[in-house]
Amino acid sequence: MKENSKKTRPIWLDEDLKVIKIIDQRRLPHEFVIEDLKTVDDVIMAIKEMYVRGAPLIGATAAYGVYLAALNSPGTTISKDYLKKECGRIKSARPTAVNLIWAADRVLSKILEVKNARKVIDIAKEEAEKIADEESDNCRKIGEHGLKLIEEISRNKKGKTVNILTHCNAGWLACVEYGTATAPIYAAFDTGIDVHVWVDETRPLNQGARLTAWELGEYGVKHTVITDNAGGHLMQHGMVDMVIVGTDRTTYTGDVANKIGTYLKALAAKDNNIPFYVALPSSTFDWSLQNGINEIPIEKRDPDEIRYIQGLDNNTIRSVLVPPPKSHVANYAFDVTPARLVTGFITERGICKATENDIKRLFPEKRQAKMTA
Amino acid sequence: MKENSKKTRPIWLDEDLKVIKIIDQRRLPHEFVIEDLKTVDDVIMAIKEMYVRGAPLIGATAAYGVYLAALNSPGTTISKDYLKKECGRIKSARPTAVNLIWAADRVLSKILEVKNARKVIDIAKEEAEKIADEESDNCRKIGEHGLKLIEEISRNKKGKTVNILTHCNAGWLACVEYGTATAPIYAAFDTGIDVHVWVDETRPLNQGARLTAWELGEYGVKHTVITDNAGGHLMQHGMVDMVIVGTDRTTYTGDVANKIGTYLKALAAKDNNIPFYVALPSSTFDWSLQNGINEIPIEKRDPDEIRYIQGLDNNTIRSVLVPPPKSHVANYAFDVTPARLVTGFITERGICKATENDIKRLFPEKRQAKMTA
Repeated sequence: MKENSKKTRPIWLDEDLKVIKIIDQRRLPHEFVIEDLKTVDDVIMAIKEMYVRGAPLIGATAAYGVYLAALNSPGTTISKDYLKKECGRIKSARPTAVNLIWAADRVLSKILEVKNARKVIDIAKEEAEKIADEESDNCRKIGEHGLKLIEEISRNKKGKTVNILTHCNAGWLACVEYGTATAPIYAAFDTGIDVHVWVDETRPLNQGARLTAWELGEYGVKHTVITDNAGGHLMQHGMVDMVIVGTDRTTYTGDVANKIGTYLKALAAKDNNIPFYVALPSSTFDWSLQNGINEIPIEKRDPDEIRYIQGLDNNTIRSVLVPPPKSHVANYAFDVTPARLVTGFITERGICKATENDIKRLFPEKRQAKMTA
Repeated sequence: MKENSKKTRPIWLDEDLKVIKIIDQRRLPHEFVIEDLKTVDDVIMAIKEMYVRGAPLIGATAAYGVYLAALNSPGTTISKDYLKKECGRIKSARPTAVNLIWAADRVLSKILEVKNARKVIDIAKEEAEKIADEESDNCRKIGEHGLKLIEEISRNKKGKTVNILTHCNAGWLACVEYGTATAPIYAAFDTGIDVHVWVDETRPLNQGARLTAWELGEYGVKHTVITDNAGGHLMQHGMVDMVIVGTDRTTYTGDVANKIGTYLKALAAKDNNIPFYVALPSSTFDWSLQNGINEIPIEKRDPDEIRYIQGLDNNTIRSVLVPPPKSHVANYAFDVTPARLVTGFITERGICKATENDIKRLFPEKRQAKMTA
């Protein structure tokens, strides 16, 4: 990461250890605002309203949220029922990203084991910090593994520009550092490969146009913002060498829930014989689900996120209404890309195919997952 | 059409016969503004800047443009060279919609035949009006033929809601009356079929959210605006019975150029076994082109159409900037859907498959098209 990016994670514990600091991602790229989360309610609001977003970051925020629950426990002792209830509230803030459940449960189960009640808060803090650090480390490794794929394309193209298409933001803003989908891109850029990124704007909340474009620009990576409609045309004309996206939940069979519209890009990649990779830390696998389309809950969000589009006018952030006020609007936030359309997964342990067998080759401890989940 | 829609075409000749009246479609749905076109330059500007858009309407506007050229001819006689030059300028206003070339050339060739110089203006006016009326009639017939497809789905669903997805605006605003893709929908609504339309917002210029939603709402047709990203998810979950779109240029082999993103919806329809129909008057066939992806020119428009999104704020139409100001942006306006993804064409002469043979079954006079075009 460059100096300016390296200094900042999208989430960190303040020096006084009582406040979680986050970047309010709703206001980027036009305003860089840091917000304080002091309570479990603050954490839930920040996740629900998407001050923070992206599966790994939602997980880290949830982990810090369980720490805040312990820290702010009413009374003189910390009740296990209270902790479970608060953890449950955090876990239901959003339905699709499995990291939310995974991270909150991991901190909770750690502190429920603690015999010495006075140590609960310290242990919660340690576990939350550990999750954030591990996710950062996982993303760094995803970058190393994914780099090899980009190096190979670059070699095959004899050093000509490698064009990578990505959807939504699976950058460091969505994670803790490096990003998932962007980690191989940053790694390629750092090694001097000529890389260019097609950035889907990603309606309705424009995380591509607002966040991915901002991240890549700050880092100095060449990129071009396009509408979500454009990727198929680019692929038909040989202008995309590879697609890399993130994911909010992936079944152990390889079905991928990600930002709405991902499925359409996967279809176009398949139709044009372009590799379609999904980058994820293992925390994003759901080892209990077999059929993504039938089993992964898809969030429906406020239609006003589609009706009103936010941007800068005259140095002020404003929202403008696009459709007729009376028209009905529906806002599906994710879709599921079936495993058959995925070329492979880039994980912290390496690259695998989108099949149960190959996923479990990398994660052999999960071979019994379906039974034990 | 309901009273309020019936009264208005998106283009008409004013009573004094010297001014072409158009609806400024850039300002809908929030403002209904009628503009005057008095010169060929006005016509070119209105087409380029998309005051008018949609292949059939671009054609009608071009036809009236050639009339204005004749009307405003400098000097005492109307020079054929002048008419050809003005017609050429009109034809190069936009590159993709073939109706533009077809309609302008049709008026030009008609008036170039005229022996009596004093009749040139009258004949130009008559031919332009004839094109507008014929296109209206063609759309009415497209509605009648397409209605049969919707009736069949309704019967198979035992009267339950028929859900139709459409992309961009191929409604009466894009044509002269009825629309192409919307004509079967309006016809189905008029016969009492329970029909609901999924309206892709259609970035970057949001013709779906702004124009199709407005048209359908005015007519009373149930509809829901969705992001361009959402259609695949809806199709996976059985929420779309049929896709109908328009087209800007279709090869005689069945490849379809239409608004960017159409190809992605066609892929999703194929993947989910959902019928994908393209509605078009025969003026939108290009009888000279065999390979749509290689041969149809795809317009690249101003990136600011993506950067700035227009809508209503506080009763004022404003534009807001979404991506970082320094980010590069590319604006591809159309893509090409290969014939293999198209279930059929709905034309004024009936329905045919997307094959050269079946297209020429309906248009036998074009059997020698490739040679004579």
